[in-house]
Amino acid sequence: MPAIFQVLELAMATSNVKLLGRNGCPFVNRAQMALNLKSIDHEFIQEDPFTKSKLLLKANPIDKKVPVLFHAETPISESLLIVQYIDEAWPNCLSILPSDPYERATTRFWAAYVDEKWFPLTAEYRKAQGEEAKAAVRDKVIEGTLLLEEAFIKCSKGKSFFGGDRIGYLDIVLGSLLGWLKVEEILTSTKIFDETKVPKLVAWTKRFCADKAVKDFIPV
Amino acid sequence: MPAIFQVLELAMATSNVKLLGRNGCPFVNRAQMALNLKSIDHEFIQEDPFTKSKLLLKANPIDKKVPVLFHAETPISESLLIVQYIDEAWPNCLSILPSDPYERATTRFWAAYVDEKWFPLTAEYRKAQGEEAKAAVRDKVIEGTLLLEEAFIKCSKGKSFFGGDRIGYLDIVLGSLLGWLKVEEILTSTKIFDETKVPKLVAWTKRFCADKAVKDFIPV
Repeated sequence: MPAIFQVLELAMATSNVKLLGRNGCPFVNRAQMALNLKSIDHEFIQEDPFTKSKLLLKANPIDKKVPVLFHAETPISESLLIVQYIDEAWPNCLSILPSDPYERATTRFWAAYVDEKWFPLTAEYRKAQGEEAKAAVRDKVIEGTLLLEEAFIKCSKGKSFFGGDRIGYLDIVLGSLLGWLKVEEILTSTKIFDETKVPKLVAWTKRFCADKAVKDFIPV
Repeated sequence: MPAIFQVLELAMATSNVKLLGRNGCPFVNRAQMALNLKSIDHEFIQEDPFTKSKLLLKANPIDKKVPVLFHAETPISESLLIVQYIDEAWPNCLSILPSDPYERATTRFWAAYVDEKWFPLTAEYRKAQGEEAKAAVRDKVIEGTLLLEEAFIKCSKGKSFFGGDRIGYLDIVLGSLLGWLKVEEILTSTKIFDETKVPKLVAWTKRFCADKAVKDFIPV
């Protein structure tokens, strides 16, 4: 694409984008990180923390949850879908998902693993009653963390991020949860990212949290 | 793309593709439907219905579930990811997802709604104990069906399928479940797709089940 069209696309990217969300919500942070990575200017609309606004109920009547991205007034819901939408709607900015179909499938697989299996386990661990039950869930959390270490080695191919040289989809998905994971670690007095067990993942958390595109959205 | 490359790509498409699955499994059927829509020849490997094969345990050690698609020996798991992979790995055959980013996001939203919210409700309804609890779940199922009728009107834009003129992603996701939904209807003596409430969806089920690309995979 000629440079002039890239400039035009970037100019378009700066208009007509709004994000409805709540400060500190990791799922909202995902959308913010993706917008930041693509340098897309946007207006942040703070959703009422106690009641659901008319705007939210109209824009996302099924789930009634933030984040909702508005692009030219059209609403898009669900954090993972918003990140993919941002990647697809502004294709000529830096890409968030890999271009190779197999790598895209792998990235989506691990993102679903984090959201649907591993992350819910960390809350389950906090709530588990009794030593035996607690130990069983802790083992599952650690097992999952070891899998994520393997996934990091496989996806990053010796580079800094799951996405390679720069932050990508899986970095955003897991990285957005680091603040909450820190809280879980404090509440349970358990290291989820233990350097002796998952050294590459621990090094990644440090790189991720220091990256200027995302660091403002991580409360750690 | 010049015609010769399209022919070459189709020739490549006919080699080196295997699908590990079980007959009658709707999630396996999704992969079969997508392969059929793209005219991708493949070998079907029947997974043992009683034990998990070594091939499955090696290919999908996290979930240990079919379907698994092997493309040039590389395994891809999870039915929705497989369908998206097929669409992305063979981009010059008929596309399964819409090309417009907003339409892609909408399609993915409804696919997730079907899999994560609505379809599980139909099983919950069957298992519900007591008239009051049963009626409450039934109301939710019907409410969801009405939403799907609206989604059909919005996505199809007056055409035959969610995907427009031809079967697309959301058609595969919902359509693959029609056999099981029929069983749920029989077991609960309740019409899930009631023509008086969701006439467009009922007409769609008939068109979908009659389509030659998918009809062999629907046990109705």
